[in-house]
Amino acid sequence: MQRNILLTISFDGSAYHGWQVQSNACTVQQVLCDAIKSVTGAFCPVTGCSRTDTGVHANMFCCCVKTESAISTQSLPAALNANLPDDIVVLSAREMPAEFHARYDCRGKEYVYKIFNSELRSPFLVNRALLYKYPLDAEFLDVQARAFLGTHDFSSFCASGSSVENKIRTVSRVGVAREGDIVTFTVAADGFLYNMVRIMVGTLLDISSGKLGADSIPSVISACNRSAAGVTAPAQGLYLNRVFYDFNLGESNNAAGSQK
Amino acid sequence: MQRNILLTISFDGSAYHGWQVQSNACTVQQVLCDAIKSVTGAFCPVTGCSRTDTGVHANMFCCCVKTESAISTQSLPAALNANLPDDIVVLSAREMPAEFHARYDCRGKEYVYKIFNSELRSPFLVNRALLYKYPLDAEFLDVQARAFLGTHDFSSFCASGSSVENKIRTVSRVGVAREGDIVTFTVAADGFLYNMVRIMVGTLLDISSGKLGADSIPSVISACNRSAAGVTAPAQGLYLNRVFYDFNLGESNNAAGSQK
Repeated sequence: MQRNILLTISFDGSAYHGWQVQSNACTVQQVLCDAIKSVTGAFCPVTGCSRTDTGVHANMFCCCVKTESAISTQSLPAALNANLPDDIVVLSAREMPAEFHARYDCRGKEYVYKIFNSELRSPFLVNRALLYKYPLDAEFLDVQARAFLGTHDFSSFCASGSSVENKIRTVSRVGVAREGDIVTFTVAADGFLYNMVRIMVGTLLDISSGKLGADSIPSVISACNRSAAGVTAPAQGLYLNRVFYDFNLGESNNAAGSQK
Repeated sequence: MQRNILLTISFDGSAYHGWQVQSNACTVQQVLCDAIKSVTGAFCPVTGCSRTDTGVHANMFCCCVKTESAISTQSLPAALNANLPDDIVVLSAREMPAEFHARYDCRGKEYVYKIFNSELRSPFLVNRALLYKYPLDAEFLDVQARAFLGTHDFSSFCASGSSVENKIRTVSRVGVAREGDIVTFTVAADGFLYNMVRIMVGTLLDISSGKLGADSIPSVISACNRSAAGVTAPAQGLYLNRVFYDFNLGESNNAAGSQK
């Protein structure tokens, strides 16, 4: 009988060309599929909650595995982890109804974007945060970012070329906070457009540098035009932090992943 | 005229066979020497404040460079950083009297040892912390560790084979603290014997597991015998955190390096 198992995983995306299997590149999905095959003895289709770009990390990422294997969900994480490289870890496994879908049943996600605000790079944050050398006023940016809250057409915050038609999304939580030299942007929404978080961060950085005016986010949103927003911040600061379903998945791997 | 420049650096030791130049291995000293040669145009002798082992990290490490170059100490860090790999960074440079010695004039050091106390590894702490799966009571270990304070013969906490004769050291600060899943052991002393911090940590873990008795550290110290102490904890959790001289070097790169 085919089972539908929901895995929560965490990964350092530095070495991967994103989640989705590609023909000529190493991806998280491919490496996970290989580990599942090693453990179950058969190829099993794996469906992710979203695609992530090259270099993007996940404190929590969810995917469904369709398998005939009888292995218990209790022993599956350890079995998979023994077959995975150190930069990917399976946190939990649970049995789901056949019709459950990791992406379509997702109610929302939370991302964090980490900025190392320092004149000098840190050897410990290579590929893990954006190095930004100029002053950042986290309290000011926190106030600016609140303009993202609510339901808007986020066309200005979608990479051009995206084929998605409905660009209306609801942002339920947003904030900018500083802890030492680390400035973190956090945003939760019912869904995200392509590069949406990275364009939000780039826009906040452009406001910080004066390239865009203070309080300009409402007009950037209403322009519904990618060119009204700021640059796309680099991938390496971005972490998928939580994935929301109609049930509680528990805490993310944030304690370790969203480190300073 | 030969100048004596004190550099503070920080490095992720994962990729290096420690500090000290070796004939057949990549070391931090070698890579730094190469960068200095690129910047100054000549080989310059570099003397470190201590040796560090393979895989050991530094939030702060100090070394002296003897050079004829006229480059300003203000511009030296950026010039060197442009010639260094991402996992080594020069934090500061200052002119010192000719007779100043990075090692002999060192008044003490502080190390931190990071334990990720979790059943599952974190993809973000690979090579950066010891994964320890069993319960740890940080408050209990903090009380146990206080027995290290003061001036003792630390022969029990010195790797056998060390050629150092005087094994008396003064521990000025010690503590164990938990932040989420990260348990950190911090110790400052006027000097450290070979593997001293790692044996201290191994001993605390052996006390935690019951292999050594509670309150046994005083008797382990007084045994003056390596076999009385616990195991040597692995290198990857160890960070040289601060180096003390008769003047103030400022904060270490701790904000970024001693991340959770």
